[in-house]
Amino acid sequence: MLRNDELDRWDRECFFHPSTHLAQHARGDSPNRILRTASGSHIEDRDGKRLLDAFAGLYCVNVGYGRQEIAEAIAEQARELAYYHAYVGHGTEVSIKLARMVIDRAPAGMSKVYFGLGGSDANETNIKLVWYYNNVLGRPEKKKIISRWRGYHGSGLVTGSLTGLGLFHQKFDLPFERIIHTDAPYWYRRPDPAMDEAAYVAHLAGELEALIEREGADTIAAFIGEPVLGTGGLVPPPAGYWEAIQAVLERHDILLIADEVVTGFGRLGTMFGSDHYGIRPDLITIAKGLTSAYAPLSGSIVGEKMWKVLEQGTDEFGVIGHGWTYSAHPIGAAAGVANLELIDKLDLISNVREIGPYLTRGLSEALAEHPHVGEVRGVGLLSAVELVEDRETRAGFDPSRKIGPAVAGRMASLGVVARAMPQGDIIGYAPPFCLTREEADTVISVTAEAIRAELG
Amino acid sequence: MLRNDELDRWDRECFFHPSTHLAQHARGDSPNRILRTASGSHIEDRDGKRLLDAFAGLYCVNVGYGRQEIAEAIAEQARELAYYHAYVGHGTEVSIKLARMVIDRAPAGMSKVYFGLGGSDANETNIKLVWYYNNVLGRPEKKKIISRWRGYHGSGLVTGSLTGLGLFHQKFDLPFERIIHTDAPYWYRRPDPAMDEAAYVAHLAGELEALIEREGADTIAAFIGEPVLGTGGLVPPPAGYWEAIQAVLERHDILLIADEVVTGFGRLGTMFGSDHYGIRPDLITIAKGLTSAYAPLSGSIVGEKMWKVLEQGTDEFGVIGHGWTYSAHPIGAAAGVANLELIDKLDLISNVREIGPYLTRGLSEALAEHPHVGEVRGVGLLSAVELVEDRETRAGFDPSRKIGPAVAGRMASLGVVARAMPQGDIIGYAPPFCLTREEADTVISVTAEAIRAELG
Ligand SMILES: Cc1ncc(COP(=O)(O)O)c(C=O)c1O
Ligand SMILES: Cc1ncc(COP(=O)(O)O)c(C=O)c1O
Repeated sequence: MLRNDELDRWDRECFFHPSTHLAQHARGDSPNRILRTASGSHIEDRDGKRLLDAFAGLYCVNVGYGRQEIAEAIAEQARELAYYHAYVGHGTEVSIKLARMVIDRAPAGMSKVYFGLGGSDANETNIKLVWYYNNVLGRPEKKKIISRWRGYHGSGLVTGSLTGLGLFHQKFDLPFERIIHTDAPYWYRRPDPAMDEAAYVAHLAGELEALIEREGADTIAAFIGEPVLGTGGLVPPPAGYWEAIQAVLERHDILLIADEVVTGFGRLGTMFGSDHYGIRPDLITIAKGLTSAYAPLSGSIVGEKMWKVLEQGTDEFGVIGHGWTYSAHPIGAAAGVANLELIDKLDLISNVREIGPYLTRGLSEALAEHPHVGEVRGVGLLSAVELVEDRETRAGFDPSRKIGPAVAGRMASLGVVARAMPQGDIIGYAPPFCLTREEADTVISVTAEAIRAELG
Repeated sequence: MLRNDELDRWDRECFFHPSTHLAQHARGDSPNRILRTASGSHIEDRDGKRLLDAFAGLYCVNVGYGRQEIAEAIAEQARELAYYHAYVGHGTEVSIKLARMVIDRAPAGMSKVYFGLGGSDANETNIKLVWYYNNVLGRPEKKKIISRWRGYHGSGLVTGSLTGLGLFHQKFDLPFERIIHTDAPYWYRRPDPAMDEAAYVAHLAGELEALIEREGADTIAAFIGEPVLGTGGLVPPPAGYWEAIQAVLERHDILLIADEVVTGFGRLGTMFGSDHYGIRPDLITIAKGLTSAYAPLSGSIVGEKMWKVLEQGTDEFGVIGHGWTYSAHPIGAAAGVANLELIDKLDLISNVREIGPYLTRGLSEALAEHPHVGEVRGVGLLSAVELVEDRETRAGFDPSRKIGPAVAGRMASLGVVARAMPQGDIIGYAPPFCLTREEADTVISVTAEAIRAELG
């Protein structure tokens, strides 16, 4: 094992971290944390500090850390056949088996799965497929994609354009022209607090309709959305939202992409978020929960309606010009199969249905009356505490005060990892599905203590 | 183990293969091949057919199949800590160690490495960084990227735009506006066969210069190229090409991205292709050879000049808005460390220097006089045989005859995998570095036999 000081030096000399203040990190002005091991809901760093990870990595280690069943499946696959490609009809047993398992678990009407590496590249695939689809159908003008402000769909150039958060646009000349945005359902921030859910849903559907009218429905190919807004703030939609949105889309022959990178495979207490909300998508994006992050793997699940047109396309134009060297990588597929089997075997989705509401309720009971807590919300095992300067006006803190990161930092020093979401002072929770009641209690009490320490 | 017929059915029912004729595959009109195991330079499918893989997967299994040292490193990492993210200064020992190893091996002047998943996403990162760089420097107009016709840089939307092959543009509305193309150095297809190397190089540099003049140097941010043209035909550049190109780029303050996804880590007999050709890049793309495909991992190596500006950017604008959940995935990093150690320990790059020329020479001796062999070429362990209808005029076959795929198909039936490159009737070779002379002899004789069988 390398010495800690040496590792620290190399980290600052050679390593370009994602989503990091590069200069502070290189200068050693900001702390780093080098992880050594992890088990269940706990991670442990090289200084021996042990933390309860209430965000499951980046809401991806859904089955919890240290699962030897998945490690063993990866090991076996690595020993036998670590890699072969899937181009031109090639494949491996494990990736085909996983495709079968994914289709069996997916909502009705899903036909095929294309495997990629991460959520961003899966959405990239989706946009390619949507454009190809409309080209095959002879609708070359029907190409714009509607995404939502505060949506998160990746950090590439096109996928970062889909993402509706300023941090991912600034200084990268995004969003691109063909990507346009509409409002996300954000109950706490609805334009008029007097609105009820039905009125707010009607307002959102009206905004979408107006955008489509303005742009022309014949220029709009697809709408992409997370069943529950994730990185943009962990916000469940108001009742009736998805029904109303789907009605608008169907009226204008606009495809629906459900980005289930966070919600897929159990996070909401159902196999897919689409099941929870009655969403009938044409494409589904999957990643994180597919392997619980034990190895990189993502996917685009293609519905029957689109698949027929893709087949027609290759009959007319030949081989489809799309592929990653590591599409359907056997190591990822082995992790995926073992992970999905484990979710079933341990009935982890039932635990989500039990522990999720317990956590949200507990946070709410502990914090709902705090003068700087604007809202406590959640669905399944996704919860958030939104902090505000003023409860009455819902006015947030000056972003330069970095209240969210300060609270999350304080929580870490008290032994619990939560995530300060990137926009707004929102503390996010998405623990492993195996979280116990005792662990949930710790998350709740540490949150309360940290908020009191930072905000009184 | 699943039954073969069942797997075959699932494959056609559920699995969306990259670069495949989707309709033929789904209908069962085209064969599939399901791999079971592999070792050294050989792969074996579920029907018990054993093949010598002279393309190392997709030129990526550089150390050969079945390396238990890499499998064991992956297994250990999976058992201890399969995943933690690298956002906001987090990391793992293995990914930091690999960053150090990459920088130690990289050409002079390289500063940091950002780890991604595949070659496409690494190039996506590169383009983001180039645009960010010019925004930080206050040059918002300097954004176009020059790529080369026949270059291959990925199959995303932006990276597919960089790629200069029709298959990846058609029906996807590519290339995007900011991506423009210049000619690749393709000695066999030089405009005038009377040109010598120096004249051809001057011609190419002149074309580039003219393109830059036309567009305006202040609109052009970067030039991207593979040291040796890969998927576009496996074509070594003429002597002096890179010197001449670099002189033009330097004159116009245009960054140089060396896409070393194929050439990185030994394929040309040097650690990097840049070493071989005296390229001084600002960014280097790495993937395939970094892990020999045992697990997905790619990287963007950032040179000192750019890194300084990235630091300045985060000092001015805060955290950089870029990251993949699986950036620097520990399983990929473990594979990378073990792979690079193995390359050193077995001195595989020396073998490339020996066996590469042996293979190219052997192909040349066996085929150079064949009436339908236009050129046999190669550098390091990358070789190609270009088939033509007419040697005199260099006229190719009618593409609809699919001569390349027919020859490659015939070779497979004779027990050797070579790749029919996607544009032109070019048979490509990029075997594992551990290829023996006996295996090379087999590749040569099978190629000759297949060409005779198909073309007389
Ligand atoms: C909903 C959603 N889509 C896509 C992505 C992008 O996934 P990745 O980071 O693996 O590229 C994320 C990542 O957080 C996500 O939450
Ligand atoms: C030079 C080059 N760059 C980039 C890529 C894209 O890599 P990937 O298929 O891993 O996305 C490839 C793939 O063949 C390549 O050869």
